[in-house]
Amino acid sequence: MFQVFAQDSASLARRGRLVTAHGVVETPVFMPVGTRGSVKAVSSAELHALEAGIILGNTYHLWLRPGLETIRHFGGLHRFMNWDGPILTDSGGFQVFSLSGLRKIEEDGVRFQSHLDGTPMFLSPEVSMEIQVALGSDIVMAFDECPPYPCDRDYAARSLALTLRWEERSRRWFADHADPSRQKLFAIVQGATHADLREESAKRLVELDFDGYAVGGVSVGEPEEEMMRAVENSVPFLPADKPRYAMGLGQPDQLLEMIARGVDMFDCVLPTRVARHGTAYTEDGTLNFNNQRFARDDAPISENTHPLCAGYSRGYIRHLITQGEILGLRLLTLHNLHFYLSLMQRARRAIDTSSFAGFRESFVSRFRAGQRSTGP
Amino acid sequence: MFQVFAQDSASLARRGRLVTAHGVVETPVFMPVGTRGSVKAVSSAELHALEAGIILGNTYHLWLRPGLETIRHFGGLHRFMNWDGPILTDSGGFQVFSLSGLRKIEEDGVRFQSHLDGTPMFLSPEVSMEIQVALGSDIVMAFDECPPYPCDRDYAARSLALTLRWEERSRRWFADHADPSRQKLFAIVQGATHADLREESAKRLVELDFDGYAVGGVSVGEPEEEMMRAVENSVPFLPADKPRYAMGLGQPDQLLEMIARGVDMFDCVLPTRVARHGTAYTEDGTLNFNNQRFARDDAPISENTHPLCAGYSRGYIRHLITQGEILGLRLLTLHNLHFYLSLMQRARRAIDTSSFAGFRESFVSRFRAGQRSTGP
Repeated sequence: MFQVFAQDSASLARRGRLVTAHGVVETPVFMPVGTRGSVKAVSSAELHALEAGIILGNTYHLWLRPGLETIRHFGGLHRFMNWDGPILTDSGGFQVFSLSGLRKIEEDGVRFQSHLDGTPMFLSPEVSMEIQVALGSDIVMAFDECPPYPCDRDYAARSLALTLRWEERSRRWFADHADPSRQKLFAIVQGATHADLREESAKRLVELDFDGYAVGGVSVGEPEEEMMRAVENSVPFLPADKPRYAMGLGQPDQLLEMIARGVDMFDCVLPTRVARHGTAYTEDGTLNFNNQRFARDDAPISENTHPLCAGYSRGYIRHLITQGEILGLRLLTLHNLHFYLSLMQRARRAIDTSSFAGFRESFVSRFRAGQRSTGP
Repeated sequence: MFQVFAQDSASLARRGRLVTAHGVVETPVFMPVGTRGSVKAVSSAELHALEAGIILGNTYHLWLRPGLETIRHFGGLHRFMNWDGPILTDSGGFQVFSLSGLRKIEEDGVRFQSHLDGTPMFLSPEVSMEIQVALGSDIVMAFDECPPYPCDRDYAARSLALTLRWEERSRRWFADHADPSRQKLFAIVQGATHADLREESAKRLVELDFDGYAVGGVSVGEPEEEMMRAVENSVPFLPADKPRYAMGLGQPDQLLEMIARGVDMFDCVLPTRVARHGTAYTEDGTLNFNNQRFARDDAPISENTHPLCAGYSRGYIRHLITQGEILGLRLLTLHNLHFYLSLMQRARRAIDTSSFAGFRESFVSRFRAGQRSTGP
């Protein structure tokens, strides 16, 4: 299912190929986020034009709306959203912990209220698996508790123990009900900022033997060095022949830094979210199109933007953004996704040609210098 | 500039070809509305894919934002908005009368306050021409006063007299400043609901010799029969060899009825506006996707939707619309524009093949029956 065929000599970066029921994914890969069954403002044809290899869907949102019976009626998420490429779905846990109101964590699962209408709901390893099997995602994520940041060792240890029991239950339900030729199951390493817990988590999950391993409990407000440390504390204990996925991350420079630490897969709402607020990623940091200085700028967003955006000037995009025109956020969304996806493409090529160290160094230093001068 | 090459035997419907500096427009034609330099949610590439022959821009909005100096900097509206096809711009008058706050009509022009920030502004025939010449639109509309509905004969007569002086001043400024190989000037017939005033207006404007003639003062809240009467009271006095344009109209069935009354050109915000509220046009009337009955509907929006929408089910589109996902309004916008544009294509083909009477009758009766059963 996963094959590593090139390894960087100066870092843990590697080239891989992930085989799914809906196509082969070249890694390192970035997965655009389609929370409610739609990568915001982007059509399936545009995702193909952007060469998106795999996208992410959110179990929690899709479970609430349109609901499982509707998804089943349409034969799964692929057909429902008219996307024939691979899909990874999260377990729903992260959203329950971050979105819902009153929630109560029990051994069996989590009781909570829908953030939409307050309906009492219950999510457990078995329910999460059942939803993800109905969604038909190519990659299913085990159900975990995502502890907050910061998190003391006591809470983190108890949370991890529960998460390990939940992941084992996820594994069991999946083995009994899923078709392993259609769907793969990934585990999630937890343990907060505690190195020994990360190690324990990774080792126990590897014993259970999953199809891939994610680093969870990141992108929860921690500083960048804690984010990197969570990866560094997990990767050494994960098998070389299974894909590794850092959840919910990150800025472009952080992605390269995590590739160097052995991560193969990423997802993040940043490129699509900041686009809707008027911001574009470039090699030299971000551009905020609400800024008056772009009003008469003839240049395209950047020299290597996507063909779909290439004919549009910065001045026009600023006009669209300040006037609230949908085309503005569409163009920036396409540009930012192209930026992330082509960054991964360049990283893959750099690993293929044994030039990743130089590529990483020059991209990261230029991007960070740009960020310092223009601000976030 | 305009050539009529087929005439329906049973009605005033006709096939024409309008030559502009940015391409040839086959008539009857529908012009998608790009108020602020963007057909809402649609890219230029999509407009080409929809085979939009010509689009409309709004002088008032573009004058306020991004403003004339910015448009001049970019070398006109075509380059600014990355659209290389023909553009018609309105005069700005209609928006001043419908959008602005305090306004004062004087012989010289209209004093009013910007609806955005209250800035005092002045629009006159000369200013409107200057803006439209700077925009570089292929078809420029003369500056007129658009009287309200209903409008008594006294007010209508005084308004018409002023409008005729304004149109003559538009004509003069345009003749002195515009390049007639790049831009054409259309006049606007006014006279409210008064047949003798419509006749007087049309005859006086024809004496002044414009490149085309619009029927104005419609789409101001009047019942459908008054809308049709305004056209019927104007067309007989307009030259056969010049294009005729009914401004701001209308429902699909109304377009066919007006083609039968000799109209060649239309613009209307309906297909794009109702799409943003979840409504699609079909042969059998409109579908409102906020309705629960579409939740598990596997069918596409309609059998003859645009290829860009064809892979998406009604159930998915309902999900997108109810969840406020931009892709939903994008798909309905593309569908509705395709519906309007292909309706015009079918009307053209029907006139070409001497089958317009049957086409009109069957489309209008089916559409109206559908509207009666599903509601607006």
